[in-house]
Amino acid sequence: MERRTRRQPAWWAWALALWMAIPLQALAADPLPSWNDGPVKHSIIDFVTRATTEGGPGYIPPEERIATFDNDGTLWPEQPVVQCAFLLEQVKARVKEDASLAKRQPFKAVLEGDLARLSSMDEPQLMELVAVTHAGKTQEELAREARAFFRTARHPKLGVPYTQLAYAPMLELLQYLRANGFQTWISSGGGADFMRVVSEDTYGIPPQQVIGSGLKEEFDEGDGHPVLRREARVDHVNDKAGKPVGIDQHIGRRPVFAAGNVRSGGDIQMLQYTHEQPRPGFSLLIHHDDAAREFAYEEKDGASLEAAREGGWTVVSMRNDWKRIFPERR
Amino acid sequence: MERRTRRQPAWWAWALALWMAIPLQALAADPLPSWNDGPVKHSIIDFVTRATTEGGPGYIPPEERIATFDNDGTLWPEQPVVQCAFLLEQVKARVKEDASLAKRQPFKAVLEGDLARLSSMDEPQLMELVAVTHAGKTQEELAREARAFFRTARHPKLGVPYTQLAYAPMLELLQYLRANGFQTWISSGGGADFMRVVSEDTYGIPPQQVIGSGLKEEFDEGDGHPVLRREARVDHVNDKAGKPVGIDQHIGRRPVFAAGNVRSGGDIQMLQYTHEQPRPGFSLLIHHDDAAREFAYEEKDGASLEAAREGGWTVVSMRNDWKRIFPERR
Repeated sequence: MERRTRRQPAWWAWALALWMAIPLQALAADPLPSWNDGPVKHSIIDFVTRATTEGGPGYIPPEERIATFDNDGTLWPEQPVVQCAFLLEQVKARVKEDASLAKRQPFKAVLEGDLARLSSMDEPQLMELVAVTHAGKTQEELAREARAFFRTARHPKLGVPYTQLAYAPMLELLQYLRANGFQTWISSGGGADFMRVVSEDTYGIPPQQVIGSGLKEEFDEGDGHPVLRREARVDHVNDKAGKPVGIDQHIGRRPVFAAGNVRSGGDIQMLQYTHEQPRPGFSLLIHHDDAAREFAYEEKDGASLEAAREGGWTVVSMRNDWKRIFPERR
Repeated sequence: MERRTRRQPAWWAWALALWMAIPLQALAADPLPSWNDGPVKHSIIDFVTRATTEGGPGYIPPEERIATFDNDGTLWPEQPVVQCAFLLEQVKARVKEDASLAKRQPFKAVLEGDLARLSSMDEPQLMELVAVTHAGKTQEELAREARAFFRTARHPKLGVPYTQLAYAPMLELLQYLRANGFQTWISSGGGADFMRVVSEDTYGIPPQQVIGSGLKEEFDEGDGHPVLRREARVDHVNDKAGKPVGIDQHIGRRPVFAAGNVRSGGDIQMLQYTHEQPRPGFSLLIHHDDAAREFAYEEKDGASLEAAREGGWTVVSMRNDWKRIFPERR
C-alpha cells in the first residue's frame, strides 16, 4: 500500500479527478427546458447551485431547504378559480336535491352569478361560501366529492381537465428543486381539503405538504367509528398575512424559496417573509401578461409588482420567460 | 442469448434465487433490541411486515404509511413534564427582570408551586400559562430560549439532559417504522414551538412533522423585516379530541399507526381515530407501570386502559415489554 500511493496515480484516477472537476450542472440536461434563457432562469439556477454548494457563501443545509408555492395563478390558472367551479357544481347538486335552496343565500347569489363573478371573490368571501356548502361533511366525503369533480370537470375555455393545466415551467421548477434536496410545499388561499386530493398526482406534493384555508373541525365519535366533521365556521384563511402564519404553524421555519403571483396581493407577505431574513431567501412573483397563451390580468393597485420592485424579488413574465405554458399533450 | 436462456441457470443464479427466497426480515438484525420478546413486540413486527408485503392482505401503500406519536410519556418521560420545567425557568427569568411580577398571577402561583404541581396541570391550563409567558415573542426568540434551556437543564431526579431521556424502545420503533417507509410524526399536547427545537436531533422527526398546541400568531411587518409574534391567545389545544383535528389539519389523512400513553386520557381519540377505519390501524398504548426504572402512575378513571380493552389496542407494559427504558450511556 505504501509503495502504491507514492507511484503515479493510475489512469482511472486521473479520469475520475477530471470527471469530478466538471460541474455536474454542466453535465446534466437543462433542468428547466420550458423556461426561456435569460436573467430569470439564470437567477433560479444560480440560487439553487449556490444553495447546494457546500462551503460556498450561499450554501443552505438540506433541512432548511423549504420551498413554498401559492397554487391558483402560480402552479395552475385561476381564470376561473378551480375551486369556484367545484363550489358551483356543489351548489347546483344541493339545489337539485332541495329546490327551495335556490331562493336562499348564498345559494341564490351563486346560481345567479357566473363562474367569473364567483372567481372574483376574495379568499375570506370564498371561505364563507365553503363553510356553508361543506358544513357537516367529513374529510372522506369531501375528498370523494372533490375527486369526482376532477374526473369530469373541464376548463370552460381550454376544454381539458384542470389537472392537465399545471404550468409546465412550474412543474419543472418543482422537480428541479426536489432533485436538489428542497422540500416543496403549497401555501395557498384555497381550501386544503380541495387541493389535497390532486396535489400528489398533479405536482408531486403529498397532502401533508399542502397548507390552505380551512374550516373548524369537530371530532364525532360516530358510534365507535370516529370521523371529523367540518363546522360552518372558518378556522384559518391562508391568504395575505395569514400565509406566513400558516407556514409557521405547519413547517416551523421560514422558507428559503417562495413563489406567488399578481392578482390580489395575496402572496406579498409570504414573499416578504421569505426574502427578508438574515440569509435572504429567493422570492419569485409571476406576472400574468400572456393574453395569447393564457390570460392577461392586472392587479387593481399594482401592489405585488411594486413590492417586488422594492424588495428585489424576481419577476416572471409569462410571455417572455416561459417557452411554453402548459405541458405538451400526450 | 437465445441459447443461454435455455441452458441450466448458472450457479450464481441459483444462489441468488435461494437468497431472495429467505425473508429479508429473518436476515436482518433484530430491529427492536430493547423490546422483550413477547406478544407486543411480535404484533408490531407482524403489522409492519404485513404493511410492507405487496399483494398481501395487510399491505399499505407507502404514501399512506403515516405514524403519529404523542410526546410526553410516550417518547420521553413526563415526570415532570419537560415544558413545565422550561416555563418555570422562564417565569423565574422574568421575575428577575421585574420583581413586581412575583406578586401577580399566574407568576405568583407558578413560583409558589413546585414542578410536580405545574406538571399536574392539564393541557388547556398549561397553554394559558404559555400564552402569558410567550406573548409578543417571535418564533426565532422562542427557539433561542428553548435551545438555551435544553443545553443547561437536567432532569431533577435522573440528573441528565432531557433529550437523553428519550425511551430507547421508542427510538428503535421510530427508526424501524421509517426504515419500512413510514413517515413518523409527533402529535402532542405540548407546544409545537417548544418541541420543534429538539425533535430532529432527539427523534429524527423534523419540525414540520411536529403537531402540537399553539398560540395565535400575528404577522408583524417589522419595518421591512417581517416576523411572526405570538399573541396571548390560545389557537389550538392539541389534546383529546383536538388531536385528530390537528392531525387532519396537518396531514390530511388518517394515520395507520399511532402511539400514546396513560395519564390523562389525552390520546384516546387519536388512538380511536387511527384504529377504527375501513382498514384497521395499529394503536399502541403505553402503560407506566415501572416504578423501579422509570415512574409508575395511574390514570384517575382508568379510561385509557379501558378504551384499549374495548378497542383491541396493543398495550405496552414498560415493566414487562421493555428490556431497557433509556439508551445506554455513551
